[in-house]
Amino acid sequence: MNIMFIGDVVGRPGRKIIKEVLPELKCKYSVDFVIANAENAAGGNGITKKIAEELFSYGIDFLTMGNHVWDNKEIFDFIEEELRMVRPANYPPGTPGRGSQIIELDGTVKIGILNISGRVFMPDLDCPFRTADRELEKLKKLTNIIVVDFHAEATSEKQALGWYLDGRVSLVAGTHTHVQTADERILPKGTAYITDVGMTGAYDGILGIEREPVIRKFLTQMPTRFEVAKGTSQLNAIVVEIDVETGLAMKIQRLIIK
Amino acid sequence: MNIMFIGDVVGRPGRKIIKEVLPELKCKYSVDFVIANAENAAGGNGITKKIAEELFSYGIDFLTMGNHVWDNKEIFDFIEEELRMVRPANYPPGTPGRGSQIIELDGTVKIGILNISGRVFMPDLDCPFRTADRELEKLKKLTNIIVVDFHAEATSEKQALGWYLDGRVSLVAGTHTHVQTADERILPKGTAYITDVGMTGAYDGILGIEREPVIRKFLTQMPTRFEVAKGTSQLNAIVVEIDVETGLAMKIQRLIIK
Amino acid sequence: MNIMFIGDVVGRPGRKIIKEVLPELKCKYSVDFVIANAENAAGGNGITKKIAEELFSYGIDFLTMGNHVWDNKEIFDFIEEELRMVRPANYPPGTPGRGSQIIELDGTVKIGILNISGRVFMPDLDCPFRTADRELEKLKKLTNIIVVDFHAEATSEKQALGWYLDGRVSLVAGTHTHVQTADERILPKGTAYITDVGMTGAYDGILGIEREPVIRKFLTQMPTRFEVAKGTSQLNAIVVEIDVETGLAMKIQRLIIK
Amino acid sequence: MNIMFIGDVVGRPGRKIIKEVLPELKCKYSVDFVIANAENAAGGNGITKKIAEELFSYGIDFLTMGNHVWDNKEIFDFIEEELRMVRPANYPPGTPGRGSQIIELDGTVKIGILNISGRVFMPDLDCPFRTADRELEKLKKLTNIIVVDFHAEATSEKQALGWYLDGRVSLVAGTHTHVQTADERILPKGTAYITDVGMTGAYDGILGIEREPVIRKFLTQMPTRFEVAKGTSQLNAIVVEIDVETGLAMKIQRLIIK
Ligand SMILES: [Fe+2]
Ligand SMILES: [Fe+2]
Ligand SMILES: [Fe+2]
Ligand SMILES: [Fe+2]
Ligand SMILES: [Fe+2]
Ligand SMILES: [Fe+2]
Ligand SMILES: [Fe+2]
Ligand SMILES: [Fe+2]
Repeated sequence: MNIMFIGDVVGRPGRKIIKEVLPELKCKYSVDFVIANAENAAGGNGITKKIAEELFSYGIDFLTMGNHVWDNKEIFDFIEEELRMVRPANYPPGTPGRGSQIIELDGTVKIGILNISGRVFMPDLDCPFRTADRELEKLKKLTNIIVVDFHAEATSEKQALGWYLDGRVSLVAGTHTHVQTADERILPKGTAYITDVGMTGAYDGILGIEREPVIRKFLTQMPTRFEVAKGTSQLNAIVVEIDVETGLAMKIQRLIIK
Repeated sequence: MNIMFIGDVVGRPGRKIIKEVLPELKCKYSVDFVIANAENAAGGNGITKKIAEELFSYGIDFLTMGNHVWDNKEIFDFIEEELRMVRPANYPPGTPGRGSQIIELDGTVKIGILNISGRVFMPDLDCPFRTADRELEKLKKLTNIIVVDFHAEATSEKQALGWYLDGRVSLVAGTHTHVQTADERILPKGTAYITDVGMTGAYDGILGIEREPVIRKFLTQMPTRFEVAKGTSQLNAIVVEIDVETGLAMKIQRLIIK
Repeated sequence: MNIMFIGDVVGRPGRKIIKEVLPELKCKYSVDFVIANAENAAGGNGITKKIAEELFSYGIDFLTMGNHVWDNKEIFDFIEEELRMVRPANYPPGTPGRGSQIIELDGTVKIGILNISGRVFMPDLDCPFRTADRELEKLKKLTNIIVVDFHAEATSEKQALGWYLDGRVSLVAGTHTHVQTADERILPKGTAYITDVGMTGAYDGILGIEREPVIRKFLTQMPTRFEVAKGTSQLNAIVVEIDVETGLAMKIQRLIIK
Repeated sequence: MNIMFIGDVVGRPGRKIIKEVLPELKCKYSVDFVIANAENAAGGNGITKKIAEELFSYGIDFLTMGNHVWDNKEIFDFIEEELRMVRPANYPPGTPGRGSQIIELDGTVKIGILNISGRVFMPDLDCPFRTADRELEKLKKLTNIIVVDFHAEATSEKQALGWYLDGRVSLVAGTHTHVQTADERILPKGTAYITDVGMTGAYDGILGIEREPVIRKFLTQMPTRFEVAKGTSQLNAIVVEIDVETGLAMKIQRLIIK
């Protein structure tokens, strides 16, 4: 089967290009299941029920989150009920929402999705590696097809988790930096890996954000109000071909659509 | 003219693949000048005179550095005399070595090379943006062909400096993360840009380093001794075509050689 | 002469105790000049013109700031005109307000006040040590009586600046941690030093802030809205006796008033 | 009963003053049990068996550690056998040594000692608050007399843990900043608290370390070799009077001995 993973969707420009190109891409790459990181989907900060529904209506099947998960308070209204969404599993016990989820596709194939946050240069959550072990123990009882969104900053931590999970999951897809990396590969034991899937949003912004305030912030070190950038959009994604029996990956392909 | 920039060279596996493939690559891409980031060239940590000479003998013309610049104390023996090397220009006044340099190629073309370190998740150096302004004021009097190695962690800071310098330099090449990004482009005013050129060293390590100790460090949070990884090497680089008159870039191309 | 320095004033409970006890304290300790760090004076975040006037009306002569300086946007309405206030001098050139100031007392004695921010675990400002050198070059031409508010987190950076300026200024008073330290002393060359003057505000809060949300934030790692704590107040301050001729300190005394 | 807690012992000057003044202090304050933070006891970095024995021979009963616990590799030779020492309990399961310990005094009174590391501006360990809950569940079954060494940087995190544990332990003593704070108090439910006990070592150093290299490091941002400072020593400690039945504190007193 083919799973598409779309990099951090940033605001309206991100949603717009998904609407425009996703149907065609799904067809072209025979995609069976689409996951998107949606932590910046609502105006660059978090997500709302309305925007989640919008993304689902464009053909996305499942949403992952990251450090911006709580930015828009509306998430608390629907995170418990929405079964097509995960937030980092290494938040402490008692955190609203879920860190992993099993989705049954066509009544036969089960896909496990696990969201984890890095700790290097990131909030102080539980150990990503031990969290992965704990969550996989549950998920592996139900399916071999497991996609991990590792939302992290440091390339060392991301590659380390990729190798740590090699052979145990179908895909470790890095998110958060908003820049697609060119290091996609199938690791020796069969896990597809990429350090960062990239960003889906305004192409001429800085990480999808209006440039001028970002540059001004670096120059002045003063508080600055950021807005989602306008103009041409890009979509960053990967498509991974997975053996349904073993859950192992056979192919990983990067997409940059402008 | 064509300038090649090689991403962080990590230890012997990095130097080995340069020796093996650089002559052929220079020929294939009609390369006039080769720059390499060498902050990890000596066993993963810093550089020595011997290793600098080794890299020059393989066809590299110029070396840039980064946060690991002082890791090997031998650098203090030759950094003042070695005119083919720069370290981050935003170290304070009085720091050994130089932050920028002009190289005269074939007695006609002058190339300015500027090394800057990021500040986000990095050591507390002077402002990279104001340092760039200050250094460019000097360099622009002598040449329009200017290559900037921005050695930084955060993608926001890297893209911000790229846009900040658009039209003022030939190339802003990001280094430090050891993972090549797929966002190479010519910015609207003519500066070639890539968030990270990547890493030249062992392909099956974590950022060129032996995997097991890196993973163990994340699992245990205890001090760990790292070694350069062994096995197959990769070379990560870019080739940029520059208009000699204007100094602006016409083409940027990523290379991943395994 | 005797200068009193009051530690970070946090919201209404901080202002209230100043109103109540400052007149009496000034009398008791023969205080000639009162400086207060006011970065948290307005509801815990920044300052307004109205609150600055309120503090002046209670007998405070001069205000220093810190990393919260821009939290309340009203500061931009009066920072340029208000000569009795400084913000960290190591913000880049062009930043609103001033980093140091000379105040003439009774038409005879001149007092220089210099505000500097640390860089360790703090925003990326210019080097505090070189900023101090630059500012002192200006101030020392006009007076020997110089008070430095070093608004910083790390005790190493604070003690280092204290020793670095020993003999060149009257006082290096640390602020920012909101906890008074017990290491007040006169350094060998005559500079009074304390790592942190402490906090003036609600005694039963956490750094002057309501306890429950702060603890919840640590437990949940989720965004939390903080409020200034209520209840009994404390005032944290120091009184330093300075030789008017040499500008050197003869005595430093800590105050904790509840 | 009276428990003395001695702040971070730094190298030979720290050990020397303990030898000289501890017997007399124990007598003067009727001290029944002495705990010292020894993470910097061996030349400023970690501890050895020989130095642990030396400290015990001077009258110290128990040692706590912190982020420098593993600096001296000799610790691995004896940490498992040494029952009079704890290291931060929030290291992952499997870490050598123990995070908490019960000591039986005179065959009657049991004292629990718990060492926890902060996470703000510190290594990525497990949640200090949940770790405290977990460890206290064990310790409270055996004794009410519990001393917590919270080795942390941020004053917010330290005060938060103090209030979080109020009424559940005898003492929360902060360590790590090497500067004694003046905020010692008995919290409303009976826990003694201080943000930092301070440092026991060379008085004229920077945190017990030779000044010149520390200042040079801040000025140059280059790697620097630190040495323990020489000259006069100070001892920083607290003495806490505890009700043996309830385990609650009745009095906390700061000591600065020069
Ligand atoms: Fe994002
Ligand atoms: Fe993110
Ligand atoms: Fe590197
Ligand atoms: Fe680097
Ligand atoms: Fe403050
Ligand atoms: Fe502050
Ligand atoms: Fe420490
Ligand atoms: Fe320490």
